[in-house]
Amino acid sequence: VKLWGGRFEESVTETVERFTESISFDKELYRQDIMGSKAHASMLAKQGLVDNSDRDKILEGLSEIQRLIENGEFKWRADREDVHMNIEAALTDMIGEPAKKLHTARSRNDQVQTDFRLWCRDAIDRIIPCIAHLQVALVTLALKNEGLIVPGYTHMQRAQPVLLQHHLLAYVEQLERDIGRLVDCRARLNFCPLGACALAGTGLPIDRFKTADELGFSAPMRNSIDAVSDRDFVVEFLSANSIIAVHLSRLGEEWVLWASEEFGFITPSDSVSTGSSIMPQKKNPDPMELVRGKSARVIGNLVTLLTLCKGLPPSYNRDLQEDKEPVFDSVKTIVGMLEVSAEFAHNITYNKERIYRALPAGHLDATTLADYLVKKGIPFRTSHDIVGRSVAFCVSRNCQLKDLSLDELRSINPVFDEDVYEYLGVENAVKNFCSYGSTGSECVASQMDDWVRKLNIEGI
Amino acid sequence: VKLWGGRFEESVTETVERFTESISFDKELYRQDIMGSKAHASMLAKQGLVDNSDRDKILEGLSEIQRLIENGEFKWRADREDVHMNIEAALTDMIGEPAKKLHTARSRNDQVQTDFRLWCRDAIDRIIPCIAHLQVALVTLALKNEGLIVPGYTHMQRAQPVLLQHHLLAYVEQLERDIGRLVDCRARLNFCPLGACALAGTGLPIDRFKTADELGFSAPMRNSIDAVSDRDFVVEFLSANSIIAVHLSRLGEEWVLWASEEFGFITPSDSVSTGSSIMPQKKNPDPMELVRGKSARVIGNLVTLLTLCKGLPPSYNRDLQEDKEPVFDSVKTIVGMLEVSAEFAHNITYNKERIYRALPAGHLDATTLADYLVKKGIPFRTSHDIVGRSVAFCVSRNCQLKDLSLDELRSINPVFDEDVYEYLGVENAVKNFCSYGSTGSECVASQMDDWVRKLNIEGI
Amino acid sequence: VKLWGGRFEESVTETVERFTESISFDKELYRQDIMGSKAHASMLAKQGLVDNSDRDKILEGLSEIQRLIENGEFKWRADREDVHMNIEAALTDMIGEPAKKLHTARSRNDQVQTDFRLWCRDAIDRIIPCIAHLQVALVTLALKNEGLIVPGYTHMQRAQPVLLQHHLLAYVEQLERDIGRLVDCRARLNFCPLGACALAGTGLPIDRFKTADELGFSAPMRNSIDAVSDRDFVVEFLSANSIIAVHLSRLGEEWVLWASEEFGFITPSDSVSTGSSIMPQKKNPDPMELVRGKSARVIGNLVTLLTLCKGLPPSYNRDLQEDKEPVFDSVKTIVGMLEVSAEFAHNITYNKERIYRALPAGHLDATTLADYLVKKGIPFRTSHDIVGRSVAFCVSRNCQLKDLSLDELRSINPVFDEDVYEYLGVENAVKNFCSYGSTGSECVASQMDDWVRKLNIEGI
Amino acid sequence: VKLWGGRFEESVTETVERFTESISFDKELYRQDIMGSKAHASMLAKQGLVDNSDRDKILEGLSEIQRLIENGEFKWRADREDVHMNIEAALTDMIGEPAKKLHTARSRNDQVQTDFRLWCRDAIDRIIPCIAHLQVALVTLALKNEGLIVPGYTHMQRAQPVLLQHHLLAYVEQLERDIGRLVDCRARLNFCPLGACALAGTGLPIDRFKTADELGFSAPMRNSIDAVSDRDFVVEFLSANSIIAVHLSRLGEEWVLWASEEFGFITPSDSVSTGSSIMPQKKNPDPMELVRGKSARVIGNLVTLLTLCKGLPPSYNRDLQEDKEPVFDSVKTIVGMLEVSAEFAHNITYNKERIYRALPAGHLDATTLADYLVKKGIPFRTSHDIVGRSVAFCVSRNCQLKDLSLDELRSINPVFDEDVYEYLGVENAVKNFCSYGSTGSECVASQMDDWVRKLNIEGI
Repeated sequence: VKLWGGRFEESVTETVERFTESISFDKELYRQDIMGSKAHASMLAKQGLVDNSDRDKILEGLSEIQRLIENGEFKWRADREDVHMNIEAALTDMIGEPAKKLHTARSRNDQVQTDFRLWCRDAIDRIIPCIAHLQVALVTLALKNEGLIVPGYTHMQRAQPVLLQHHLLAYVEQLERDIGRLVDCRARLNFCPLGACALAGTGLPIDRFKTADELGFSAPMRNSIDAVSDRDFVVEFLSANSIIAVHLSRLGEEWVLWASEEFGFITPSDSVSTGSSIMPQKKNPDPMELVRGKSARVIGNLVTLLTLCKGLPPSYNRDLQEDKEPVFDSVKTIVGMLEVSAEFAHNITYNKERIYRALPAGHLDATTLADYLVKKGIPFRTSHDIVGRSVAFCVSRNCQLKDLSLDELRSINPVFDEDVYEYLGVENAVKNFCSYGSTGSECVASQMDDWVRKLNIEGI
Repeated sequence: VKLWGGRFEESVTETVERFTESISFDKELYRQDIMGSKAHASMLAKQGLVDNSDRDKILEGLSEIQRLIENGEFKWRADREDVHMNIEAALTDMIGEPAKKLHTARSRNDQVQTDFRLWCRDAIDRIIPCIAHLQVALVTLALKNEGLIVPGYTHMQRAQPVLLQHHLLAYVEQLERDIGRLVDCRARLNFCPLGACALAGTGLPIDRFKTADELGFSAPMRNSIDAVSDRDFVVEFLSANSIIAVHLSRLGEEWVLWASEEFGFITPSDSVSTGSSIMPQKKNPDPMELVRGKSARVIGNLVTLLTLCKGLPPSYNRDLQEDKEPVFDSVKTIVGMLEVSAEFAHNITYNKERIYRALPAGHLDATTLADYLVKKGIPFRTSHDIVGRSVAFCVSRNCQLKDLSLDELRSINPVFDEDVYEYLGVENAVKNFCSYGSTGSECVASQMDDWVRKLNIEGI
Repeated sequence: VKLWGGRFEESVTETVERFTESISFDKELYRQDIMGSKAHASMLAKQGLVDNSDRDKILEGLSEIQRLIENGEFKWRADREDVHMNIEAALTDMIGEPAKKLHTARSRNDQVQTDFRLWCRDAIDRIIPCIAHLQVALVTLALKNEGLIVPGYTHMQRAQPVLLQHHLLAYVEQLERDIGRLVDCRARLNFCPLGACALAGTGLPIDRFKTADELGFSAPMRNSIDAVSDRDFVVEFLSANSIIAVHLSRLGEEWVLWASEEFGFITPSDSVSTGSSIMPQKKNPDPMELVRGKSARVIGNLVTLLTLCKGLPPSYNRDLQEDKEPVFDSVKTIVGMLEVSAEFAHNITYNKERIYRALPAGHLDATTLADYLVKKGIPFRTSHDIVGRSVAFCVSRNCQLKDLSLDELRSINPVFDEDVYEYLGVENAVKNFCSYGSTGSECVASQMDDWVRKLNIEGI
Repeated sequence: VKLWGGRFEESVTETVERFTESISFDKELYRQDIMGSKAHASMLAKQGLVDNSDRDKILEGLSEIQRLIENGEFKWRADREDVHMNIEAALTDMIGEPAKKLHTARSRNDQVQTDFRLWCRDAIDRIIPCIAHLQVALVTLALKNEGLIVPGYTHMQRAQPVLLQHHLLAYVEQLERDIGRLVDCRARLNFCPLGACALAGTGLPIDRFKTADELGFSAPMRNSIDAVSDRDFVVEFLSANSIIAVHLSRLGEEWVLWASEEFGFITPSDSVSTGSSIMPQKKNPDPMELVRGKSARVIGNLVTLLTLCKGLPPSYNRDLQEDKEPVFDSVKTIVGMLEVSAEFAHNITYNKERIYRALPAGHLDATTLADYLVKKGIPFRTSHDIVGRSVAFCVSRNCQLKDLSLDELRSINPVFDEDVYEYLGVENAVKNFCSYGSTGSECVASQMDDWVRKLNIEGI
């Protein structure tokens, strides 16, 4: 009954069958498996290894199987072990003899790698637009809040005033690098293992360049043993996903904090909030908590793959069957995280009044004042010390730097002049920034323009 | 429509609903959820918070729901979010008003923790017998191969001869500690969070000792905030599973190696082997490769949990919803790994002839010879050197230590005497071991007896 | 020159020596190594394997070496590879021939395991008091702030009012379980591998019970192969540390947030804060940020160990040399995290005035109001809905529940009565809690008493 | 005393100082820190923010400090916290007032990022040649063993015969992708954060393009907040290292196995082997065991970084100080693993005679026989079955396929013809492979030529 029947006298036990089956999850690869088989069959025909009539039956049969699967009419069978054997056996049931030629000059070892590389390539092509979509959502949110100043933090302590647009663009930059990593990963994985067969290639006159080309690969892989044994493309893909996940976890942390009563900087709409089964007043930013939380499983999946591959004996080992579920889960999770983050971005209101009232606290203009002193010729270390004492003076008076009179300032250091007030207060502080990449209004406007153009965002 | 309807004006978007739902996986908790609700309802009635007639309707309704679920007739609804709300809402559909009293003095925060602790406890109670079952399989395998000597390895290099029984009991010992860890974990998690409500407890006159008792917990948890926010019991459980997984991965590595052509020490039966879709002669020990491989996901799941909990703000956060799938997956995987390892053990034949022929290689008696010299009064370091030179001599002659004549031995060092031959050869080497815990025949026989008794193994 | 000189014709290359040496880190084990060698030598003498005069020279020599090491006068040599060979070779340099007998009936395989188990046992004995010390610091902090009500959070949203004491005791509970895990781990690792030798035991008449006893172990390990090959005790120890680390990371997150301008609930003293090299006004809670951050390396170390052991071939492999650095680092990190957390606790001031002003926001008494309705006989689900609408009413009026007049309340539902005001406001809310483990004043007072007694805290 | 003295009234406690210091490890960055400071000072002078005479004093002072450090004459001070403050403060001690201007328009937040990116870039530039060096060693080893056929494995079971050259080139391919990942990572990280200051940029007229250019960066980073808060480049670097580590762990596993008595395919020279302290006959391939083992710490370091960054609040947090040690350790480990693997490759002898004797076992020509049948027009599935039965026949006779007479073969299936013997036996099997990337002699020769040329390997 089994595909390797020839020299086997007994079937595997039920426990073994249940433990080793992969059909429950690798059917996810059906589309890629059929695509690969079609390219393989066409190549076999071109090379004279099957005749054209058999090829046509195979191609039609595979199309029909795809139709059945997509209509939910295909019967997956655990005793047929995996997606490859399910489809091939169904094809045999359907068209008979010609189906037995399909597995010529290939093995499941190269077949599954081909399917999986195609699947990962498709997944990357699905994730990148989701990232871009979130970038658009963030830039759109920034556009809606032009001119809004928020506290910038380091160590969760207020540091300097920044434009919200500048703050949001930091995430956009990170996401742009995330795309870059996926693009690099895609290019590196896009080589075709098909024809490596079990591990050594074949003596039959196949044309690997043809199948590679038909499947959109850059070229066939150069070494058949490498082709069936390495999974570095999977680890690289999961690493790229993990970095995205970490970026989103930090966005999640920010929005959860900013939605708290204590910050109160944003209000998510009811449509992205949930309540409590016991506390009637609650409104929770659950989606972003889950974004933060789900980053953990993306990281866990990466660890699974690394641990899986570590120390494996050379070439293909059955352990490698375990490479798929972590990837399927990681992709599904990342897509969900990206989508829901974009949705959240579209449903946030910044509480301008509350933010405005909050700005005076924290002496956000202290560094600008130090810059002022530098411009007056005071060495920075000395300026830092003078401003430090000025802040201490304010703390003791419970006031802001801009509330100090010139006399008071001069009592700390005589260098202060009337023009100091052009540097105090958060608006002045923001206005004074001018370095490339800074939060200065012009720098930010220019960055915003670049992103609006790059992301093709229509005016809002 | 939603349970927190009161102050909400909009439903969540479809993207958010899909992303935040947990019913697709937390329905796994249905049995524990119903058990918890029954105990809670009984307690509420005893405390006069619901009347007995309402309680009875609740209990009957819950039993009916359990019946429906177990018959596959229950309709899980994603818009009802999770297992708790699905069951409570179904109860309301079924019995009306009394169901609305069930959520008195509890929150989903304490409810899910109660369910999950019960589930983990049940899982531990399922895993421990699987471990014991594998211990039995290993001891049985040892009993079948009494007296068989195999090479003992360090650094994958042959080191000393050991009895196979001794070698297999090493795994039995490891599994015994694995049970110990689970037992400790079970005791530590077996405290009842129910009644902690959202996080602060309640002002209603509940009796937490009664529910704890009815659910088989040692006591209620002492601090309500701790009860809803910590997941250390999950991490401890996943750690214990990870250690089991590592132990099994090493057993897998051994059996995969020993089944290779090069070792050839064991032959797994066809019923636990699989073949190749391309190479007709192959017979692969797939189950044990997968055991080795699946250890990776158990470790990955642990990393997920640790990363999930790391740095979370105090008390309950929605991130914690992510605590369940890694545990469900870990338990399913561990149970499968244990079962299939036991099955494999039952289907191994040791190739005694081949092992016997292999034993001479590797100078496994060299250390015994050094012990001989120590007994003759030579300091160990000097003995080590003498034997080292004797081995070098053998290597140059391509012979075994026992093949050397007394004259040859004496040419290396005059201390050798006729009785040296009682120490040479692997049988003599094994015979000479006598320290507690060693591979000496009597020591091993005594250990075997202890395990046979402890594991209640009948004569084979 | 090398210890295995006998059959070797070449020294290892410099690259190999540098890559494989362990003396740069395993000298950390010197104290345990000497302790183990002394016990071993005494046993050998008792068993007649060395004579008493040699034993005395060995013991004296080892004491002298310990003295030299502790005075920084010992010369560690990389060409002597590891701590064991450094000490043994130095002993040989010092006392000559008798030293060559010390390695009788042991191998570095069992020796290093003995040293390392002793080291881990000592480390546990160092960590547990640090945990207790932090518990004391937290309870002391709680004692200093009796009666202080703070917002309790779920989802970082205000949920219900809780007593600060209750909130802090949640951490104390977690730390108590952390101790429990270490105690269990200690008991499980406290078995003696010495005498397992390379992997098979020995034919020399040693007494493993004597060495085990002298070194404070419960008993010798039962199986020599298990003794040299398993590292599950290390993984268990690192898991226990990881859970501690996660607990502390959450404490860190809390204190960092509460020290922010937005929360403003705590002020750390200058003595546990740091400033900025550029922003003169900054005061950052760095130690607790680092506590949060350093949890990551404790987790990373655990992953290192699990990945290290996964899939290793049976018995001892040189890979296992890598088991030590992660443990040394983990222990040092955990001790530092515990110490600095306690120090931070001693240097926190809760800003009572600010907290008091913050309490009205967030409708923290809503759940208490729902309990009130339940007491009036309204089913909880209905109560929840009524309170939900009451809160919505407050939101629209920008007021608190307690600000609503009885008429206003009755316009929502006629069940409200004059006594409702005994349930509104955070003080009333806290006063109403009464369930075991709740934040009710009496429950908390009783828990505080228990902890003060258990931790032997003197009145403050 | 401290750099942020202005508003601080107390020094940090000794516990805090010890816990938060980074000088013990970040002094590793001294060269990059000085390089960055020099570029910064030059830019400040060009922009008129310091005068040329001050700049010259700064540059000379920094050169002198570098000289002191490299001669071991620099005194690192823990009370000066980190590498940046140690160098700046020493500069102040040395040249006085001008040094106080160096920190103008920068913060340690952007400074450390600049240093660290430079360090990582340098590290990549160190690792890539080590990879290439190992590739050369592997190709050289292949050149030395031209024509040698070894068993190819899947599932650790013999599968098909392959040329050793082909087998070794699989690793060379993997290493080539490893280089690609590092190159991509290098390009992505090579943007300059300097001038981002604390997080918002500066109001002083700096020229970030000039410093970026002088330090060899592609451009300044576009967003100052992103510049100080993200560590994705570190995670990407550690991921790339982890994949290298996994590749090497598999090479390690192979060589450890192949050096075992059971395989006996390779003999490492004494210069890369170690012996045993107890077993005089042992010769262990320790370096490759450690290569396999050390992969675990490289993976652990990656997990540390991912866990560290997960869920961090926006912008710079002190947690990020923990980003360095895992990277330093990872780089040191990877370089060591690569070097020692190359050294091992140079010290391996393949045991041709033993391999030759081993080849007949395992029916390695079975798949070639199936290809033969396909060429005769038999569908592959049927061929597979025929060969399966032929192998079963051989197993029962304990013979090889090539030992079967034509009659015997025809008794299984009449299609066999005299030419079948051109397909049987491992030499014929290898000869028959012809597909691109296969182990066929011509394909492999062509691949070898390509690599010899690409790696500039001289004839051996």
